[in-house]
Amino acid sequence: MAVDRVKIADHFFDCSDTERAAFEAGIKLGTIYHQFVGTPISRENVSLLEKAIAEGTKIQPFVKDAEVRISRDELASKKGEFDYVSLSGNMLNVRLVVEYGSVRLTAGMKFIPEISYPLMFIEKIERCGKKSR
Amino acid sequence: MAVDRVKIADHFFDCSDTERAAFEAGIKLGTIYHQFVGTPISRENVSLLEKAIAEGTKIQPFVKDAEVRISRDELASKKGEFDYVSLSGNMLNVRLVVEYGSVRLTAGMKFIPEISYPLMFIEKIERCGKKSR
Amino acid sequence: MAVDRVKIADHFFDCSDTERAAFEAGIKLGTIYHQFVGTPISRENVSLLEKAIAEGTKIQPFVKDAEVRISRDELASKKGEFDYVSLSGNMLNVRLVVEYGSVRLTAGMKFIPEISYPLMFIEKIERCGKKSR
Amino acid sequence: MAVDRVKIADHFFDCSDTERAAFEAGIKLGTIYHQFVGTPISRENVSLLEKAIAEGTKIQPFVKDAEVRISRDELASKKGEFDYVSLSGNMLNVRLVVEYGSVRLTAGMKFIPEISYPLMFIEKIERCGKKSR
Repeated sequence: MAVDRVKIADHFFDCSDTERAAFEAGIKLGTIYHQFVGTPISRENVSLLEKAIAEGTKIQPFVKDAEVRISRDELASKKGEFDYVSLSGNMLNVRLVVEYGSVRLTAGMKFIPEISYPLMFIEKIERCGKKSR
Repeated sequence: MAVDRVKIADHFFDCSDTERAAFEAGIKLGTIYHQFVGTPISRENVSLLEKAIAEGTKIQPFVKDAEVRISRDELASKKGEFDYVSLSGNMLNVRLVVEYGSVRLTAGMKFIPEISYPLMFIEKIERCGKKSR
Repeated sequence: MAVDRVKIADHFFDCSDTERAAFEAGIKLGTIYHQFVGTPISRENVSLLEKAIAEGTKIQPFVKDAEVRISRDELASKKGEFDYVSLSGNMLNVRLVVEYGSVRLTAGMKFIPEISYPLMFIEKIERCGKKSR
Repeated sequence: MAVDRVKIADHFFDCSDTERAAFEAGIKLGTIYHQFVGTPISRENVSLLEKAIAEGTKIQPFVKDAEVRISRDELASKKGEFDYVSLSGNMLNVRLVVEYGSVRLTAGMKFIPEISYPLMFIEKIERCGKKSR
């Protein structure tokens, strides 16, 4: 593991812990959106999919917590022959916590109706009491 | 619903129940592969992801059953700094049952090492005792 | 190659050429939708993405032709801070030709507004003058 | 547009230009990987896919440049019945430039054989002479 860390450091610019935490949080949000948008969902499987996306995020490097919420509104309106939809960006609400070195960064994704855009954002950057890497 | 069915029939060639069942099974297998390949997995979330893929398949039109198995071999070999991998085609084993009209069709996906290929295949076509649509 | 074909036949139910062609067409349509929905598009890259999706379809087994059209309507309405959108099912219009053995099958995908659904359908099945495999 | 920018700022922590640039670069790298891994490629369409990924990256917010290279090695070794593969992380080589406020950040993705991992990394952070937002 020490070896791995050195190998990775070889490729990385000597950035600060906050910059690195921001980079890692961005990766995870881009991953959630582009891996899962398009997935078939209905009232039956929506809770399970929320959990699967959150757990698939938590196993990635530096992620301490992740919560995923898919809006039920569009699902509630579907009925008839085909009782499901594809997950789209306007349904996704995500919050995740990344820790890197001395920094704890909270980031998220939510749909902003005024600009019709699924915004990914940094919510908070805190010191978390560990010493810098 | 009667209206919907007519609208859909408007767009469809007058094919047999077996041809339609084969078409629908193909759609679902292409969907599983291309929606989920790339998803982060580790020993922690692999069972949950198998279940999420299967449930997301069962809610789609004409699917009666779906089973998904992700090989643990590649997961078992991972350790160190980053303890996860991306789901790839060689790990996926799928079996699904589609019913359309009088036909029950079983299809699947499995990796064939001799040709290094994640093959999608029709396993069985049976009459299921309902009358043709 | 003879060996490969035998290996694949080992796993396949002895279905007809039309059933197999329908299965293969379904795979390709599921692939297009679930691989590319979510891709960032704007007026600048939409033609290139149409071509990339079509070419990525043509290299797959048994595909003889593929055309992809992404609706410009939603792109035309976007302006301001972020001048792009994610590809969604309601923008996709696809037509593809699969040949298997003696059969030529034309299939497609288009959005049906009356049911708010990106329908995948078989358009035509013809004999193509080759003898059955 | 002024309105949009205010609305977005409402949701964002008051982070530095380098932190924001790092966050945006991370989003774009996660997007490339999880949108395109799984895409069918062969020698015929690989150049076109590289271009489509790069152009789809350039249209996203704050991206000034993007280059994508897919390794030909695995493609060269494929022959026989099915002459294509799925794009996987070990084939992807990406370099992108993000500008935010006074900062120009270069980031990338490349496969590191020693750790069998498609590493996303920050390569360089520079001042670009514009004043901070």
